[in-house]
Amino acid sequence: MASHRHKHWTADPTTVLRVGKGFRLDRTDPEATPGYHRRKRDSVDDLVAGSDELSDLQERLYASSRGESDAAGSVLLVLQAMDTAGKGGIIRHVVGSVDPQGVQLAAFKKPTTEELAHDFLWRIRARVPEPGMIGVFDRSHYEDVLIGKVRSLAPDDEIERRYGAIVDFEKELTDAGTRIVKVMLHISPREQRDRLMERLDRPDKHWKYNPGDVDERKLWPEYMRAYQAVFDRTSTSNAPWYVVPANHKWYARLAVQSLLLSALLEIDPHWPAASFDVATERERLSAT
Amino acid sequence: MASHRHKHWTADPTTVLRVGKGFRLDRTDPEATPGYHRRKRDSVDDLVAGSDELSDLQERLYASSRGESDAAGSVLLVLQAMDTAGKGGIIRHVVGSVDPQGVQLAAFKKPTTEELAHDFLWRIRARVPEPGMIGVFDRSHYEDVLIGKVRSLAPDDEIERRYGAIVDFEKELTDAGTRIVKVMLHISPREQRDRLMERLDRPDKHWKYNPGDVDERKLWPEYMRAYQAVFDRTSTSNAPWYVVPANHKWYARLAVQSLLLSALLEIDPHWPAASFDVATERERLSAT
Repeated sequence: MASHRHKHWTADPTTVLRVGKGFRLDRTDPEATPGYHRRKRDSVDDLVAGSDELSDLQERLYASSRGESDAAGSVLLVLQAMDTAGKGGIIRHVVGSVDPQGVQLAAFKKPTTEELAHDFLWRIRARVPEPGMIGVFDRSHYEDVLIGKVRSLAPDDEIERRYGAIVDFEKELTDAGTRIVKVMLHISPREQRDRLMERLDRPDKHWKYNPGDVDERKLWPEYMRAYQAVFDRTSTSNAPWYVVPANHKWYARLAVQSLLLSALLEIDPHWPAASFDVATERERLSAT
Repeated sequence: MASHRHKHWTADPTTVLRVGKGFRLDRTDPEATPGYHRRKRDSVDDLVAGSDELSDLQERLYASSRGESDAAGSVLLVLQAMDTAGKGGIIRHVVGSVDPQGVQLAAFKKPTTEELAHDFLWRIRARVPEPGMIGVFDRSHYEDVLIGKVRSLAPDDEIERRYGAIVDFEKELTDAGTRIVKVMLHISPREQRDRLMERLDRPDKHWKYNPGDVDERKLWPEYMRAYQAVFDRTSTSNAPWYVVPANHKWYARLAVQSLLLSALLEIDPHWPAASFDVATERERLSAT
């Protein structure tokens, strides 16, 4: 199938946004638009074209899981970010363009008492996508090494243990046929202030504002260090991290869409063969 | 808020499609387009306009559940139909137009052993939408009085008991603030044959075809009688049934969208008031 995914990109987002050896978050510009140099208004057309391709691939992925051959693959998009960075917009405008029947969305909030009584991966395991599905984690097991570290919710040696547990867990998933796309949406502190201020300025946005966001915001440098540690410890060849500059929402959406398209094209799902005899079924149906 | 919902309708779908006293399924024409007399190509524009309104109302509904006032409402769309009638298309094209973060989709397949060990409503109760959400049941507790009756999966007196249990259950939900929209998509046997044949004709549709569909198809009159019994016994003032003629997919989508819009407009969700002092927060934020 012809792919439109890189039509207007000057570099493959899976390369240019990937967290490799020596990656430094503090040298990554949230204003940049790596690999894409068209204007915002062009990006809208490109997003629509990408949505059509994503829809088509999602349907094939779903269909492939209904076949009788080997287990179909799945995709897991992990979204992490500081508040207001645009996770919701990605879910709405990128994920929301495909059939909701093919999407399993999991939003991980502050753990409940029951969840805290289990290992931190317990609630995560329960929500991994089934074969044929696109899973989306709105926050994830990474909270347990981000806010967990910044707020000292767990001792240092437990945080250390978790990095390894995460790498093992994700290896298990990718070995079983899940493509993991881990995305950090990267905004600047100033952009966050503007976005929070907008929520305060608009009564129809007040419900999105939480005074606690300002407290978290004061810990920005600590969070950036925790993200850097996450990248150093958990960006693996089978489940790499992508840092997506997100001061421009339109760029972040286009980039995440492209990363999802790449994951699906790697799976390359096919329509499953009929498990019945087509001619026989035509006759049976015609007789009714 | 101004509503566009009835802009091009000559009659309110909540009236003209509603199953009232004396309703007869066998006198309902699956080819008809009650209350809407524009052409297919006009319906596309109307569906887009309705999607925008639905999106806006969904966001308000979701936001209202984040407020500190009384519990917010929710919507539950129950979809029932013979195979190929278009449930999937409704989910894709109507439900799929709103933010997936505000939708809770539940597809009820053949019950598992665990589910069978419980009362038939057990698995249903586990999936009712939370406050602020739009829940969608792709098949539902009604299967237990449809295929349950047609295939004699339960004794007659148990089927009888279930009608009452369903009415009580739905009353409980609507009393708690859930608007229930029960839709049967109504196609003709001939239309079903054409749609099944198309699945056989197209290799990219083979995965949607199941030889068992032809067996169910042979029981069409029995199913229609079971649906009639469902309408007679469970179309209540608080949770009425709507029979939506569905030989024209574009009509069915527009009609279900309109029914959903009506349910949301009845709830009339509002942006919640701020639970914090806006001026104080502006100062706190500016200081960061």
